[in-house]
Amino acid sequence: MAGRRGGGKRVRDVAVIGVGMTHFGKFPERSLKDLAREAVEGALKHASVDRTLLQAAYVGNAMAGLMTGQECIRGQVLLRPLGIEAIPIVNAENACASASTAFHLGWLGVAAGLYDVVLALGVEKLYDEDKKKSFRALGSAVDVEFMTQIAAALKEAQGDKPSAGSGSSRSVFMDFYAMMGRLHMERFGTKKEHFAKIAVKNHYHGSLNPHAQYRETTTLEEVMAAPLVVEPLTRPMTSPLGDGAAAAVLCDAATARRLGARPVWVKASVLVSGKDRAFGEPDIVERAAKKAYESSGVGPGDLNVVEVHDATSAAELLAYEELGLCREGEGGRLVDECATTLGGRVPVNTSGGLCAKGHPVGATGIAQIAEIVWQLRGEAGERQVERARFGLTQNGGGALGNEAAAMAVHILAR
Amino acid sequence: MAGRRGGGKRVRDVAVIGVGMTHFGKFPERSLKDLAREAVEGALKHASVDRTLLQAAYVGNAMAGLMTGQECIRGQVLLRPLGIEAIPIVNAENACASASTAFHLGWLGVAAGLYDVVLALGVEKLYDEDKKKSFRALGSAVDVEFMTQIAAALKEAQGDKPSAGSGSSRSVFMDFYAMMGRLHMERFGTKKEHFAKIAVKNHYHGSLNPHAQYRETTTLEEVMAAPLVVEPLTRPMTSPLGDGAAAAVLCDAATARRLGARPVWVKASVLVSGKDRAFGEPDIVERAAKKAYESSGVGPGDLNVVEVHDATSAAELLAYEELGLCREGEGGRLVDECATTLGGRVPVNTSGGLCAKGHPVGATGIAQIAEIVWQLRGEAGERQVERARFGLTQNGGGALGNEAAAMAVHILAR
Repeated sequence: MAGRRGGGKRVRDVAVIGVGMTHFGKFPERSLKDLAREAVEGALKHASVDRTLLQAAYVGNAMAGLMTGQECIRGQVLLRPLGIEAIPIVNAENACASASTAFHLGWLGVAAGLYDVVLALGVEKLYDEDKKKSFRALGSAVDVEFMTQIAAALKEAQGDKPSAGSGSSRSVFMDFYAMMGRLHMERFGTKKEHFAKIAVKNHYHGSLNPHAQYRETTTLEEVMAAPLVVEPLTRPMTSPLGDGAAAAVLCDAATARRLGARPVWVKASVLVSGKDRAFGEPDIVERAAKKAYESSGVGPGDLNVVEVHDATSAAELLAYEELGLCREGEGGRLVDECATTLGGRVPVNTSGGLCAKGHPVGATGIAQIAEIVWQLRGEAGERQVERARFGLTQNGGGALGNEAAAMAVHILAR
Repeated sequence: MAGRRGGGKRVRDVAVIGVGMTHFGKFPERSLKDLAREAVEGALKHASVDRTLLQAAYVGNAMAGLMTGQECIRGQVLLRPLGIEAIPIVNAENACASASTAFHLGWLGVAAGLYDVVLALGVEKLYDEDKKKSFRALGSAVDVEFMTQIAAALKEAQGDKPSAGSGSSRSVFMDFYAMMGRLHMERFGTKKEHFAKIAVKNHYHGSLNPHAQYRETTTLEEVMAAPLVVEPLTRPMTSPLGDGAAAAVLCDAATARRLGARPVWVKASVLVSGKDRAFGEPDIVERAAKKAYESSGVGPGDLNVVEVHDATSAAELLAYEELGLCREGEGGRLVDECATTLGGRVPVNTSGGLCAKGHPVGATGIAQIAEIVWQLRGEAGERQVERARFGLTQNGGGALGNEAAAMAVHILAR
């Protein structure tokens, strides 16, 4: 059962044997501890594993320092009330890819043979009645020093007049994604309607997911007519602010057998960082996906179900191409063919994705993995993809220069 | 060369082949990027390794979110200007043990065979002209929600009168350490002078360390007469606020040979968390040390040089006993015998330790490792311990209940 990964080195096979998550949504009355408890207890129950079996824990969170003041030892504070203590606890952060990073570290600990059973947790409270506080926290996922200098220079150039929409009424990421969408429209003739159709699809999928922040379906007309965030993105094409947690229990093959677990195998766990990318060079998603496909032997044509980082619907369309689900420029056609809708060739974001399921940033990566695990175990209820054997998650974090700062791709198989 | 660790699993041997650090001190004019650059370039130069060889990077920082606003993707922001990009970058946090945690993850990546050459970096800007800002950041290394509830309850009980010294004029940790020191005095007859002698020793050691925040020697009389922080701790017995960075390059044995490096071997890399400890149960330092001794086969009697987490001098005296350098209750005698002073049986904190070298929290763990690496390579200059073969570092982070939240112990050997 041992695989070869990471430059031909031999590591142990790793299984996910249980996942759990909270509803995603706006929960001003719920604490980080409360959210973490529900996700962790859910994952342990799903795995039929007692907390005393856990040998290490990896906790992803992006913004609790700015949102709640809990800057340090977040994992220890959240896990102690659950009786999870004494074992190594690592607090990991990679902005919106924090949970995937925690999961990746957990995979590594088991793959290396250091631990047999570990917990990975992602948790976030991002919603605040003062939305500017949430947007400021999101704004810390870029080079803050550089952006502050730019803002100061702009302010001086404008003679100290406050500029319209100066970063506090929406996440700075919306502008990045909108630009990427507009470029795609110019290069390939993609239409705003394509992005809108993705939003319609994901809200339909979300309507079938009891954990989703938005459970209402919508129509193309409604999405097109919705309030504009940044051209071409209207509100349903963008991920909302929200809170939530997701957790996973990982173990080695022998332990999975001994426990009589229903394993979902981690075929690839890839984390990469962004770079100063020249025009024409492969994008960070392509680079991460290439590594994942190469190390697992699973190709894009093998995938039955995929969760991508649709912080906006434009990002989802681009991800189709970067992940190799279709050729460059053909993302719009994939949408028109309904290939990524439930029932299509390769359903994407059956959970509803970030736009409908929600995007409590530090929880998102493991929530994606939870969806794939449920799909591969045949536990996805009304949104079940028939005979799903291979699934992929793609989760990005932060931005530096012209791409994400961190990108995680996981390939799972039953 | 392969060792057996972590429950009998086979992992690769890992070497530190280069370390670097900045001066520690108060540098309001230096940015996190500037500090990180100096430490990383120093480590790469010490290792005679080009940055292009690095396959992954682990970045420890505790408080940049609250101190600088850079809550997310700290490592990517700091390493991009150095051309370290595209590779996996993990941001790791465990309060004052953040750097040790980053180092531990780097060790794991190499030990597992996933990477051959990795970078571990610890960096912090903790000093601010508004010291309350620094103390508030340090105050996030406890259970913030719980402490806020306690503070509110106290305030109500006192009829809304502001209580004296209510947490903003010093780090909350000073009270914990002072209590531990007083308990030791009561139980074992330890004197305030013993703690003071440790401070004298460490300031002497610091006077020999070009990187130390304080380079002046002091006397027992001066330390006893210095301003009181909390009884029995006067100011020279406590670690100062400061800024700094430290970095290390790790690789596997074959790569170390190929590079012609002068390896210092990581014999044990142990990370544990705190627990709700009953009276009489082994303390978190004892638990971590026991694991490190057992997995390395190196015992406390083998150690030639040790760096401990003397956030206060009381903590250093307790660490002597918890690490097994002497029996319980005999820490004071060890001090009287000058056993831990340069030239003694087992010199402790030859760097000056946290009280004299300084304690930019997220940098401290790797700075300790740097000192041991220099000692084992015979590069420690005026503070060189002759024929040092085995060294140990002990680095704690945060507090929950009655002990630290995280504890890392590393054993290194030439």
